[in-house]
Amino acid sequence: MRILSGMRSTGRLHLGNFITLEKWKELQDQGNECFYFVANWHGLTSHIDETSSFYDWSLDIVRTYVSAGLDPEKSVLFIQSAIKEHAELFLYFSMLVSVSRLERVPTYKDQKEQITDRDLSSGGFLLYPVLQAADILMYLATGVPVGEDQIYHVELTREIARKFNNQFAEVFPEPEPILAKVPKLPGTDGRKMSKSYGNYILIDTDEKELWKMIAPMMTDPARMRRTDRGDPEKCPVWDYHKAFTTSDEEKRWVVEGCKTAGIGCIECKRLLHKNLVQRLSPVWEKLSHLKENSDELFEIIEDGNKKAREVAKGTMKRVIEATKLGW
Amino acid sequence: MRILSGMRSTGRLHLGNFITLEKWKELQDQGNECFYFVANWHGLTSHIDETSSFYDWSLDIVRTYVSAGLDPEKSVLFIQSAIKEHAELFLYFSMLVSVSRLERVPTYKDQKEQITDRDLSSGGFLLYPVLQAADILMYLATGVPVGEDQIYHVELTREIARKFNNQFAEVFPEPEPILAKVPKLPGTDGRKMSKSYGNYILIDTDEKELWKMIAPMMTDPARMRRTDRGDPEKCPVWDYHKAFTTSDEEKRWVVEGCKTAGIGCIECKRLLHKNLVQRLSPVWEKLSHLKENSDELFEIIEDGNKKAREVAKGTMKRVIEATKLGW
Repeated sequence: MRILSGMRSTGRLHLGNFITLEKWKELQDQGNECFYFVANWHGLTSHIDETSSFYDWSLDIVRTYVSAGLDPEKSVLFIQSAIKEHAELFLYFSMLVSVSRLERVPTYKDQKEQITDRDLSSGGFLLYPVLQAADILMYLATGVPVGEDQIYHVELTREIARKFNNQFAEVFPEPEPILAKVPKLPGTDGRKMSKSYGNYILIDTDEKELWKMIAPMMTDPARMRRTDRGDPEKCPVWDYHKAFTTSDEEKRWVVEGCKTAGIGCIECKRLLHKNLVQRLSPVWEKLSHLKENSDELFEIIEDGNKKAREVAKGTMKRVIEATKLGW
Repeated sequence: MRILSGMRSTGRLHLGNFITLEKWKELQDQGNECFYFVANWHGLTSHIDETSSFYDWSLDIVRTYVSAGLDPEKSVLFIQSAIKEHAELFLYFSMLVSVSRLERVPTYKDQKEQITDRDLSSGGFLLYPVLQAADILMYLATGVPVGEDQIYHVELTREIARKFNNQFAEVFPEPEPILAKVPKLPGTDGRKMSKSYGNYILIDTDEKELWKMIAPMMTDPARMRRTDRGDPEKCPVWDYHKAFTTSDEEKRWVVEGCKTAGIGCIECKRLLHKNLVQRLSPVWEKLSHLKENSDELFEIIEDGNKKAREVAKGTMKRVIEATKLGW
């Protein structure tokens, strides 16, 4: 399969993203042809006041991609704004989807309702899924790893592909969403993870800092004292164990110890810390290697951009032949 | 002044466009730095089913630009889709204007109501004025010759320029609309000029064909017989005289002859024909020269595209420095 996915350049990556990156790595290691990018133009839709940080965040994201196991020899890692063709295809696609269709996109409605501290009134935000369709179809992707909330965007991408093919000529495949069963991580305080709450754990951290985030984590609010029995299903720490503790024995120890008050929350958290350190140590090593060798990172990005650009140019050639709008 | 204007590649140019071109030529001859382009991407918003004709229409439009006196040595004549930067700037600007603001654009509302034989539901159509703003600001234009219905678009362009400058850095001037007092030409049947009515006179015609269009023209409907007195203000032919008959004496002859039934409609039309032939003959000569020497036309376009591209690249460099979104 030809795979495409990306993350927005609106901050540094956290453990929720890490789980996604592990899925991306799986797809890569299965021998798929993968394109993974940094969506810095998408960042404009919600973070226009922070573009001055986008450059550093973008570097940070690619560094984390590579450190989490995305192999630049196997996957094309690139930056959206380096491939101007995305903007051109976005323009074409904007002609193929109606305003009312876009207004019905569930994430559009939800975010407009829920996000009150950012201005989401722009035309660009309404057309967000159109730019996404351009990102995906530019690389003729057939599979798009997404979270559940993004399935509708892939559906819209399929519609745009169909509409273009019918209107002009058969250029685009209809990509399928690849829904990974990833455990949803809450914030360390039990609320939704959010930059403004500061309740998420960065991938790029160290043993000590990691413990500083885990130690005060929210647990089952009903377990007030060490002697109270707890319910793991009401505890964010258990969500993290489900994601990062692989041994069934350890998981049993956590569940039983919690339910019987056999272990205290702090012991439970120490186990999580140990497992996370184990899981992240090789990532941290690569991260510091790439920080010390920034030339290597820039080379990876330049190389990825070049490969992406070649594919994009090929697609636009076909688009222009189909629409007869070239010059 | 730096001037920018364009015409859409949705058909061949008619006498209404000719009046506009004469105004453009005036601006050029006054020593302004003029950029005149063919808006073929804009054509997508309303004529997506006819893109296969856009190439020929675009050639035809530039040929007519030159024949009507736009001098490629003085003015930059170019094709929108040849300058990919317009799409990139369009993407940026889409983030700077709200959906509700776009929905309030009078031409958007009017055309959605009035044009029923075309699908104007697309996101691209809603964002039409944003692409227009990108066209204008790409060349740092300070003056935009427009019809009255387009003044609001220039106002929106000024808003976008201000918003960009405030958000990022001072890059764009705020262009002024240049409202030419051009007589509005009705269709030959007295209705609004429209391709679907076939009621307009092409610039690229000849003496004989021109007469075929003028002879059956609608006149004051109350003047049924030769002996009835007419009212020029109710006669489309008089609208054409106002635009193309320059001699005051001839105009007086038309008005008095009509009002007193001193002349018949056919005599009045013959005078219009004579004056139009005189006005258009040099245009026709250049048109046939450029048809016989298509290399010359292609060279003009290539040269114009190149000049436009240079300016566009310069602007995008500043945009990218300001937004820090380059790579």
